Amino acid sequence: MAIEVGIIMGSDSDLNIMQAAADILKELGVEYELTVVSAHRTPLRMVEYAQQAKARGLKVIIAGAGGAAHLPGMIASITALPVIGVPVKSSNSINGWDSVLSILQMPNGVPVATVALNAAKNAGILAAQIIGTTNEQVGNNVELYKQNLEKEVLVKVGNLKEKGYTNAFD
Amino acid sequence: MAIEVGIIMGSDSDLNIMQAAADILKELGVEYELTVVSAHRTPLRMVEYAQQAKARGLKVIIAGAGGAAHLPGMIASITALPVIGVPVKSSNSINGWDSVLSILQMPNGVPVATVALNAAKNAGILAAQIIGTTNEQVGNNVELYKQNLEKEVLVKVGNLKEKGYTNAFD
Amino acid sequence: MAIEVGIIMGSDSDLNIMQAAADILKELGVEYELTVVSAHRTPLRMVEYAQQAKARGLKVIIAGAGGAAHLPGMIASITALPVIGVPVKSSNSINGWDSVLSILQMPNGVPVATVALNAAKNAGILAAQIIGTTNEQVGNNVELYKQNLEKEVLVKVGNLKEKGYTNAFD
Amino acid sequence: MAIEVGIIMGSDSDLNIMQAAADILKELGVEYELTVVSAHRTPLRMVEYAQQAKARGLKVIIAGAGGAAHLPGMIASITALPVIGVPVKSSNSINGWDSVLSILQMPNGVPVATVALNAAKNAGILAAQIIGTTNEQVGNNVELYKQNLEKEVLVKVGNLKEKGYTNAFD
Amino acid sequence: MAIEVGIIMGSDSDLNIMQAAADILKELGVEYELTVVSAHRTPLRMVEYAQQAKARGLKVIIAGAGGAAHLPGMIASITALPVIGVPVKSSNSINGWDSVLSILQMPNGVPVATVALNAAKNAGILAAQIIGTTNEQVGNNVELYKQNLEKEVLVKVGNLKEKGYTNAFD
Amino acid sequence: MAIEVGIIMGSDSDLNIMQAAADILKELGVEYELTVVSAHRTPLRMVEYAQQAKARGLKVIIAGAGGAAHLPGMIASITALPVIGVPVKSSNSINGWDSVLSILQMPNGVPVATVALNAAKNAGILAAQIIGTTNEQVGNNVELYKQNLEKEVLVKVGNLKEKGYTNAFD
Amino acid sequence: MAIEVGIIMGSDSDLNIMQAAADILKELGVEYELTVVSAHRTPLRMVEYAQQAKARGLKVIIAGAGGAAHLPGMIASITALPVIGVPVKSSNSINGWDSVLSILQMPNGVPVATVALNAAKNAGILAAQIIGTTNEQVGNNVELYKQNLEKEVLVKVGNLKEKGYTNAFD
Amino acid sequence: MAIEVGIIMGSDSDLNIMQAAADILKELGVEYELTVVSAHRTPLRMVEYAQQAKARGLKVIIAGAGGAAHLPGMIASITALPVIGVPVKSSNSINGWDSVLSILQMPNGVPVATVALNAAKNAGILAAQIIGTTNEQVGNNVELYKQNLEKEVLVKVGNLKEKGYTNAFD
Repeated sequence: MAIEVGIIMGSDSDLNIMQAAADILKELGVEYELTVVSAHRTPLRMVEYAQQAKARGLKVIIAGAGGAAHLPGMIASITALPVIGVPVKSSNSINGWDSVLSILQMPNGVPVATVALNAAKNAGILAAQIIGTTNEQVGNNVELYKQNLEKEVLVKVGNLKEKGYTNAFD
Repeated sequence: MAIEVGIIMGSDSDLNIMQAAADILKELGVEYELTVVSAHRTPLRMVEYAQQAKARGLKVIIAGAGGAAHLPGMIASITALPVIGVPVKSSNSINGWDSVLSILQMPNGVPVATVALNAAKNAGILAAQIIGTTNEQVGNNVELYKQNLEKEVLVKVGNLKEKGYTNAFD
Repeated sequence: MAIEVGIIMGSDSDLNIMQAAADILKELGVEYELTVVSAHRTPLRMVEYAQQAKARGLKVIIAGAGGAAHLPGMIASITALPVIGVPVKSSNSINGWDSVLSILQMPNGVPVATVALNAAKNAGILAAQIIGTTNEQVGNNVELYKQNLEKEVLVKVGNLKEKGYTNAFD
Repeated sequence: MAIEVGIIMGSDSDLNIMQAAADILKELGVEYELTVVSAHRTPLRMVEYAQQAKARGLKVIIAGAGGAAHLPGMIASITALPVIGVPVKSSNSINGWDSVLSILQMPNGVPVATVALNAAKNAGILAAQIIGTTNEQVGNNVELYKQNLEKEVLVKVGNLKEKGYTNAFD
Repeated sequence: MAIEVGIIMGSDSDLNIMQAAADILKELGVEYELTVVSAHRTPLRMVEYAQQAKARGLKVIIAGAGGAAHLPGMIASITALPVIGVPVKSSNSINGWDSVLSILQMPNGVPVATVALNAAKNAGILAAQIIGTTNEQVGNNVELYKQNLEKEVLVKVGNLKEKGYTNAFD
Repeated sequence: MAIEVGIIMGSDSDLNIMQAAADILKELGVEYELTVVSAHRTPLRMVEYAQQAKARGLKVIIAGAGGAAHLPGMIASITALPVIGVPVKSSNSINGWDSVLSILQMPNGVPVATVALNAAKNAGILAAQIIGTTNEQVGNNVELYKQNLEKEVLVKVGNLKEKGYTNAFD
Repeated sequence: MAIEVGIIMGSDSDLNIMQAAADILKELGVEYELTVVSAHRTPLRMVEYAQQAKARGLKVIIAGAGGAAHLPGMIASITALPVIGVPVKSSNSINGWDSVLSILQMPNGVPVATVALNAAKNAGILAAQIIGTTNEQVGNNVELYKQNLEKEVLVKVGNLKEKGYTNAFD
Repeated sequence: MAIEVGIIMGSDSDLNIMQAAADILKELGVEYELTVVSAHRTPLRMVEYAQQAKARGLKVIIAGAGGAAHLPGMIASITALPVIGVPVKSSNSINGWDSVLSILQMPNGVPVATVALNAAKNAGILAAQIIGTTNEQVGNNVELYKQNLEKEVLVKVGNLKEKGYTNAFD
């Protein structure tokens, strides 16, 4: 299977957050690439990345950035591919508000699919859901993943009972 | 072409906002359905809608809601399809913050692709981008749409010059 | 006495917060059950829990959740029982604002009785106050509890005097 | 049936908001009283009101206030009855944030059941739900009310279809 | 000299913050008393404290509280003395916003002189400034205190020079 | 009686707000002066005003400003008189947050007695309370003013009854 | 004199705000150009504009944008000229917070000189101050402008006196 | 080369932040001075500093302050030189919001070039950019600095590849 998802981030200091996108994509059977593309320090590299993305076979781009986070929106301004933005609560961020608002509040015409603060894992799942709309294998993997979420909760339900918590419902 | 995008909203009072998603999908050549599904007033209808969405052929769901906006996240909890959330600045909202946060801040495992406050048009474009990852026709329509955005700006550039604004760049 | 209060939470990681509701209910002589019900990972279990709550004899439901916290509002959308919501400042929360707003800002028709951030103890007291409106024993227990709050303060008043703080009032 | 719910507000300028609590209580078959009690301008009247509430037969108190909104919390500090707080977005409020936070963020021991900004209607429904935990008639009225909410949505669903919106789900 | 300033706080857990008011008052030659008065746990004690304050000779009351901080405003509603409010960033506070807003945003007719978050020292200085408007000794002490602030800065200016920082201004 | 309160504001566009301070001071029998002193456009006039205030017989200064509101804090940095700050929600303000924070959050050593957003009336009352700590006449006027607040509420209580609102308490 | 300041904005809908920068630059004797450059709709035009700015003789660029406002920061990422950012409170903005944060919170290495919300006039003055650091004529013009600000205030001071406001200071 | 940039801060406790401005100016070949000037504790020193700045040869002033941060705006009110403001997240700040807003939101006529929270390094770069508009050497140094930013990113790109991250783009 070809690489269908590009994961990019403004700085390798975001890798500890963005790694989760890579991990879940692997788990869900989606091929990805991962690199650093900085809107503010390598703007021309960013333009090039966005311009070539579709021709290189990518179907979805996941972009993570913090503070005045311009990477996701700028990528979305150049490519017609769906772009998923991960607001990163970086060290220079004001509690994440800047990261969230500068990714989310895109003007009409240029959407960025924004996920929760630091939610790179959800960005990966969303990318897989997008791939899965036409790739049955990946679609099934997402469904199984969601069923597992449910099972994990039910195990916890049992654990609470064993610890002595009354639970007349189950 | 079959209906591939479902547009739902918590109340028909959101229609003046959500209509923009329908309009742009039509413009981009994507078939859609549009109805009211309320997380809080028709919770079982909501469950049913989400459960049947994939089998009915939908590929993307756009859900708009305001205030304690649970519709997008709850739909995403039941279906494995990608869900796009539109935070609506409804009359009972605190400047839109509640709408944004209760749609965006989903827990790990259950992403919602959130767009800007009231940005139903961008939700429609994002849905078309997702469809366009494998539907060449729709993909091309999105590219053309983006090129038109650029042309519209260039017309405005000319207008400013005609109004007498010096512009040594163009 | 039958179980009258159901305490539910979206994840067992919320137990360290929600335990306080259980503890104070026990102290106030109210029987409770406690389990995990996730709006986003076990949505159908959530529906079932809310649908059966009244028939199983519950009178009040306490639901704790964080981030895009949909559990309290969704429970309230299905049952006619009073639902108390506890906004939990979970690790993925933006300083608790998302938890508070997505529980508090419910639309007309579907109230959630929201308490302070992380205030599971107050949720328990409020549940006891509700039970106590017709259960004289529990009502008296709440009154005694409040009188004890006052006594504890008066002890502290004395302590400050002993430490040498001038206090011409007492 | 005796008066079981007291509706109080800090100023008669809040009446246009708080009237909704009275209206829905009437609709749900719950007797109420309504008066002005100001924490800041009639503090002793406030103390007296809270002290006598239980003996006068009240079971629930609904208190609305805006800005530095102390009325709900102060009533709750004196009576053991459940107190429902309605944050009012009064003219001197900073977008309602002060009203919400000064009602919601009560310390341990003294809960206020807070509803959404300006949501007096929900305060009335919540009071009826509390009465309804032991008063079967009122409990049934609330259930019927909720069923009507659902019916109203379904009518809107039909209206959208008639207006020509495609809706393959219903 | 008689006690002219009363320092009260909602809980002795606020003492580590409020101590600073006592310390600076002592330094500025103003007699004070210090005790715990809780709006929510000892409401009648609070009423009594405010009612007797003027007759007991107090001229200014400093009240510190956190979260839904009602103590300063309630004291101000009962006494005609100037009341200084100290918003405390207590453990249950949402970054101090609740403390600030529920003390600051008092309605017309009932002011609270609010100082910065946790700024008990400034509350003490402000109380001394008020006393100093007619007590020449205290007024002079405040002036000297302010002159010392200036001197301390000038010492730091010198220190920076010694550390090798170029400073062509001084 | 001499002028004891100086009311200053950054711009005459703030007069519609600050007038309320003058009006209430007149009502409470306190002599005042009122002028424009701009921290940012007449900084030296500001310094002079603060330097001369005490010698000119002023006892309290009320300063109103909006946006990056530096006037109250800068006056407080120069004079040892108590300074009351009125955050004005001017046209360039971000919902008043900038006005509030830049007046309230003064560093240790230099307090500003901050009142609510736009609450010039409360600034005037607070100034009168300060004067009233030693001026018996003014102190009595404030007490009477507060008693009138109470009476006005009681009239409204009666009005509600006449309009047909049940009110079993009074 | 050559054009030394470029004024750009994301959309001609921002012209009603950004015009003020042009007007004040003209008043201060600085030549400017003004055009539309959209980060999101004409990203390549934006790159080109920034790349050529210095060679074309520009010394300062003023960029205005609203919502997820990327234009100022992206221009700053490409050119080494000083860039002044004007956060515009556009119709899709959340009270201006998104505009402010996405312009202000630039990462280390790529500053944007941010002015107040909608403060295009101040952007123009700042540009003139920068030009004026070496252009004596422009520097003098800014000084005169500031002196006029002072004079305008003093006229207002006189007006207030004429209206009958006591003003013992002047 | 003469000293062209003055770095001032309200307290030497801000030195750990403001040092970064000095370091980068040195790296970029710009002479600077650094001292403590407090708006609130040494207001007259502040006036004098601003009044003499131009005559002493300064071209840019960098001022850092936290909380109710008045230093940058007050300096800008007195001198016609460009002033760069660094909002410092000092210990008494509410998450930096007060620092940012009280520096950024200056009224028309008196701009402060505000940089990100704690971004003293960017203040230094911005000052060098201003100097560099006419000083070719400094202008070149800034350009080289920006090219190095890009190179550092490219090294990180390589590092990620070596660590085994797939990267089909480079």
